[in-house]
Amino acid sequence: MKTHTDYLWFNTKARHEFVNITGEVARVVSESGVDDGMALVSAMHITAAVYVNDAESGLIADIEEWLSKIAPTRHPYRHHQTGEDNGYAHLWNLTLGHQVIVPITKGKLDLGPWEQVYYAEFDGRRKKRVIVKVMGR
Amino acid sequence: MKTHTDYLWFNTKARHEFVNITGEVARVVSESGVDDGMALVSAMHITAAVYVNDAESGLIADIEEWLSKIAPTRHPYRHHQTGEDNGYAHLWNLTLGHQVIVPITKGKLDLGPWEQVYYAEFDGRRKKRVIVKVMGR
Amino acid sequence: MKTHTDYLWFNTKARHEFVNITGEVARVVSESGVDDGMALVSAMHITAAVYVNDAESGLIADIEEWLSKIAPTRHPYRHHQTGEDNGYAHLWNLTLGHQVIVPITKGKLDLGPWEQVYYAEFDGRRKKRVIVKVMGR
Repeated sequence: MKTHTDYLWFNTKARHEFVNITGEVARVVSESGVDDGMALVSAMHITAAVYVNDAESGLIADIEEWLSKIAPTRHPYRHHQTGEDNGYAHLWNLTLGHQVIVPITKGKLDLGPWEQVYYAEFDGRRKKRVIVKVMGR
Repeated sequence: MKTHTDYLWFNTKARHEFVNITGEVARVVSESGVDDGMALVSAMHITAAVYVNDAESGLIADIEEWLSKIAPTRHPYRHHQTGEDNGYAHLWNLTLGHQVIVPITKGKLDLGPWEQVYYAEFDGRRKKRVIVKVMGR
Repeated sequence: MKTHTDYLWFNTKARHEFVNITGEVARVVSESGVDDGMALVSAMHITAAVYVNDAESGLIADIEEWLSKIAPTRHPYRHHQTGEDNGYAHLWNLTLGHQVIVPITKGKLDLGPWEQVYYAEFDGRRKKRVIVKVMGR
């Protein structure tokens, strides 16, 4: 049994940014030497998400608009009494989820035709991390 | 350490359909010979979901009505400028999630009394897949 | 390869309760003897959630208020025709998710600075369980 761990670092220019990390995850899986198993891809911060969906810019704009509708950015969240202004970003993290598991078969990411792994930053412009942990044989 | 992979195929008659796949997942786990471990059950398409909840038809209708309320089917999504009409289906996938991990103990799915694994199709009437990857000892 | 399984029991005083279980998960991981791997933390009931986010009481109140807004507690859900009154609790489970995977590195939970594991009870005052299954080497 093999395990392998790597960390992806982000420091986005915009406060909100959607980054396709499929290639980075594939690289870590390749470096792991795992032929059959799973890769956990998990945001280590609670105001960002990791999800799987389509690499289509219109859809990505739809996702952000939709998040803004179900959890508005300018709502007077109680969390803001701590001095923060990112209450919405916590709720967006909970809506999209902070992690995915990518199956690995024959040494490759075993993804469907349109599946891409995304890091979605909701409170950026500072250093943040995603862990990629690979486990298998 | 053992790994075992199988793919479940779907081609639903209705555009939206909720399919209880608990028995299929149990069959794959049984075939894997894994006594203790985890089974990843993950939709390979981005307009379907895999989730765990109750096998109760009223609740399933509630879930679909609720999804329609938080992400309406007829909204003018930007994604539709690509010729698609399934923007809502991407958002429903993100809301319910596209994968679950089922724990395996003593060779069986280690689920609570009401937990059932569902494949939820949001853009059906064509062939789609779910991967089941079992890992353990 | 090692696997180790434990069950956390809950019987909350309030119908809705958010319980920080990070310490309990760390204890199970420590008992497993796994140095590198993953811990699945999964609610075995379909009216509770397991999620990762901040241990900040204002935010926790924001989360509950937000859940009540997107899936109201008093809605006439079809599920209530079975005699239940917890339709909302099923939808809250689906919104936050019922499970997380915590990565384990050097025998410890490999969490970011603010990541805490929460059990969120939405229909409490009775015995309910969470499974923690650890897998690794």
